[in-house]
Amino acid sequence: MSRVVLHNYFRSSTSYRVRIALNLKGVAYDYVAHHLRHGEHRDAAFLAVNPQGLVPALVWTDGTVVTQSLAICEFLDEAIREPALLPADAPGRARVRAISQMIACEIHPVNNLRVLNALRTRYGADDSGVADWFRHWVNETFAPLEEMLAKSPHTGRFCHGDAPGLADICLVAQVANNARFNVDMTPYPTIACIRDACMELPAFADAAPARQPDAE
Amino acid sequence: MSRVVLHNYFRSSTSYRVRIALNLKGVAYDYVAHHLRHGEHRDAAFLAVNPQGLVPALVWTDGTVVTQSLAICEFLDEAIREPALLPADAPGRARVRAISQMIACEIHPVNNLRVLNALRTRYGADDSGVADWFRHWVNETFAPLEEMLAKSPHTGRFCHGDAPGLADICLVAQVANNARFNVDMTPYPTIACIRDACMELPAFADAAPARQPDAE
Repeated sequence: MSRVVLHNYFRSSTSYRVRIALNLKGVAYDYVAHHLRHGEHRDAAFLAVNPQGLVPALVWTDGTVVTQSLAICEFLDEAIREPALLPADAPGRARVRAISQMIACEIHPVNNLRVLNALRTRYGADDSGVADWFRHWVNETFAPLEEMLAKSPHTGRFCHGDAPGLADICLVAQVANNARFNVDMTPYPTIACIRDACMELPAFADAAPARQPDAE
Repeated sequence: MSRVVLHNYFRSSTSYRVRIALNLKGVAYDYVAHHLRHGEHRDAAFLAVNPQGLVPALVWTDGTVVTQSLAICEFLDEAIREPALLPADAPGRARVRAISQMIACEIHPVNNLRVLNALRTRYGADDSGVADWFRHWVNETFAPLEEMLAKSPHTGRFCHGDAPGLADICLVAQVANNARFNVDMTPYPTIACIRDACMELPAFADAAPARQPDAE
């Protein structure tokens, strides 16, 4: 059994998700940084691990390589059952996965670095245009997410009850990204409150971009 | 116990995923169509089911509402165990989820209707520009996906072995979308071959957009 290795980048919000999950599960890991802006994730050694050249990529103790942040989180949840990242009941799991996917499939992909760069190169978007694009897609999903969370009896101190899980992982990483584009969180008091509750936990706080070895 | 209801739209590829999953599981369902271009999914009755106003949304026999296509597929896989949409082993499940998320988190969100519309309204993109954008993001992920599938000993007649599952569901729906934007599939023989194998199965063929009651 080797040590777990996480190929990641401090500012990548999908990497941030996996760091939180590893911390919640109490898994110690070797941090291997790949600087996205410098193209280090395209080097040959990393492409041998993940042909897609994207972070995060997890190398488990038995050598299994897992990519895609939500797949990694589910893998960790199956490998180490406690504390669970998903509820015990099927409707609860569906709710947590749906909240996670609202962020992971609707907000983040449209707003990640390579898409923002494409807006600049293809359509001449400037910093202000890129920021407006970013905020638009956050608001499109955060508005219904806020309503869902505020109205549901399943929402507790965290997105689902009083223990943190997969949805909180996605929420915290997204809110961190939002800050870089000055997203106004005033319309989202429930989301903001859950984010604050998470950041009181070392598993979340220690995973923050600014605390990573490659932070600038 | 009521009948299962699927709120969907024939052309929506996320709806297409769920239709395949329901067919594979042998679940009969009531088809409720919401015409995305006409804004029907924003009507009050549907917003009561899904405050986000997006399709697909599944209403299960006990009234549980599940949104987000991958969350719905996982819910179905937990509710009805056979045939399984995910492999029995954890690394296999991680591989299938990762392939699914390459499509669901990297390609589809950047290319869905509302993002393409935003390119038109914000940046004056024309049909040609929109098609080029679409193909760019497909190719960005299909190139490494083709390599992953072609090189892996886990790939069989389908993405993972010789039974169809979650990854095939995502693959087939994406390839159908690609055809609308004339994506050249020549560089992707493995993906094309898996797609063809899927379409020989009634569960996939019957879920195709053209076969739905709201097809135009």
